[in-house]
Amino acid sequence: MRDGPEHGYVHGYDAGEQARLHDQAATLETLLHHDSRFPEGCTVLEAGSGVGAQTLPLLRRNPGIRLTCVDIAAASLAEGRARIAAAGLPLPAFRQADLRALPFADAAFDHAFVCFVLEHLPEPAAALAELRRVVRPGGSLTVIEGDHGSVLLHPEDAAARAAIACQVVLQRAAGGDAEIGRRLAPLLRQAGFAEARVSPRLVYVDGSRPALAEGFIRRTFTAMVAGIRDEAVHAGLTQEAAFDAGLRGLLRAADPDGTFCYTFFKAVAVVPAV
Amino acid sequence: MRDGPEHGYVHGYDAGEQARLHDQAATLETLLHHDSRFPEGCTVLEAGSGVGAQTLPLLRRNPGIRLTCVDIAAASLAEGRARIAAAGLPLPAFRQADLRALPFADAAFDHAFVCFVLEHLPEPAAALAELRRVVRPGGSLTVIEGDHGSVLLHPEDAAARAAIACQVVLQRAAGGDAEIGRRLAPLLRQAGFAEARVSPRLVYVDGSRPALAEGFIRRTFTAMVAGIRDEAVHAGLTQEAAFDAGLRGLLRAADPDGTFCYTFFKAVAVVPAV
Repeated sequence: MRDGPEHGYVHGYDAGEQARLHDQAATLETLLHHDSRFPEGCTVLEAGSGVGAQTLPLLRRNPGIRLTCVDIAAASLAEGRARIAAAGLPLPAFRQADLRALPFADAAFDHAFVCFVLEHLPEPAAALAELRRVVRPGGSLTVIEGDHGSVLLHPEDAAARAAIACQVVLQRAAGGDAEIGRRLAPLLRQAGFAEARVSPRLVYVDGSRPALAEGFIRRTFTAMVAGIRDEAVHAGLTQEAAFDAGLRGLLRAADPDGTFCYTFFKAVAVVPAV
Repeated sequence: MRDGPEHGYVHGYDAGEQARLHDQAATLETLLHHDSRFPEGCTVLEAGSGVGAQTLPLLRRNPGIRLTCVDIAAASLAEGRARIAAAGLPLPAFRQADLRALPFADAAFDHAFVCFVLEHLPEPAAALAELRRVVRPGGSLTVIEGDHGSVLLHPEDAAARAAIACQVVLQRAAGGDAEIGRRLAPLLRQAGFAEARVSPRLVYVDGSRPALAEGFIRRTFTAMVAGIRDEAVHAGLTQEAAFDAGLRGLLRAADPDGTFCYTFFKAVAVVPAV
């Protein structure tokens, strides 16, 4: 799941609200990353690091690791470098590469880390096998992915479901899988990992958590779905009015009497001894 | 969610397997009830106690409470009493009554407890308001319900979805809501509770947890869906072959390369001071 756009579907926050949203981002970061801890001095590969959205929480928790960030897009790597520098965190090494053919020797790293990456790949098991290759026996791989099938809405809303389904269909057409979270355990076994311990992380929002409603339902999930509106319309999957009704249905769950659930899946798998 | 039938869809376990299943039942009991704790000596009402399936874990954790069990069915109360006696637990008081018109004075109890009951009621908010009436100001209500919309399956299976949908439709036709879990927070507010703290409890099963696959996917969830087969066929919602394909789809998730998720919702709400 990508973050919502910087100036996304919902606008107009004052400084106090920005601060609360930052707190909520921290809540989600804690949910996903509180246990992303690696020993001082160990070598970690972040594959598909993009613009560094997940690199920042990783480095904040593990400033002493020797991190290498790989992404296929040079522009993303450059933006990631700038963000990490601006945050005053230790700069990783950066390598432009395809994560299906990594420019590293076998067993080059102690650990590997991928977050919101496999969902975009046509052959996630092949990517996992390549990650296994570059991690030493006894080392580990951490994977975090979402699953759009996990959305629970109240009030239930058919148009909102249809809008989410547009994203699932588009992502599948592009070779990915927006419902990959539930598949992490079998994928990791298929890729030759010895143990895969999967822990779901459920984000639950109701009217008692207005800042989380704002930060997660409106500014993250709905903003992300809104981001595929034109593509879905052009692909003939929906029409403007129907899609916009779906966005309103999603936003409705952020009202004081609405509720919303989304489940992320985090897996930690060990590379078997040879 | 009702427990699977005693001699349900899957048969033939030896003593060792029975022991493991018992362990898994304990896992689920811990997930739902580990924090169902009430002070020694306080008065607790369990409304809709049925045959005592939830009374047992409640009393095991809270043997010192003064418990009253209410159910509309005298036969269920009698069976519950026998089970509790057989378990060597302190016997509660039993009252046959409709939980929408409880035979107790206002503020008669310190706490109330309902588990897998609201899902069957046409007017859950009215029942909650009646429970609020009989709990003293400052006392609390604990509610636990499932939500069939929370099922995640791998492999995804349209026939399994259709079988689950049959149960949702039948339960709605009977005045209930098999997807009530997500609605607890607004229902509690509607019923006049001051604070409602909802915590989802997600059961996740993959191939690394074969005993949980057996105990939860096969013997609990699939057995429960199997239990409405004839009713669904007679209601014209499905046909035998299609429904049985759905059951196979559910069981498929219990295979070593399958996964399954189900989310329960537990709410603790406080009765406001007058």
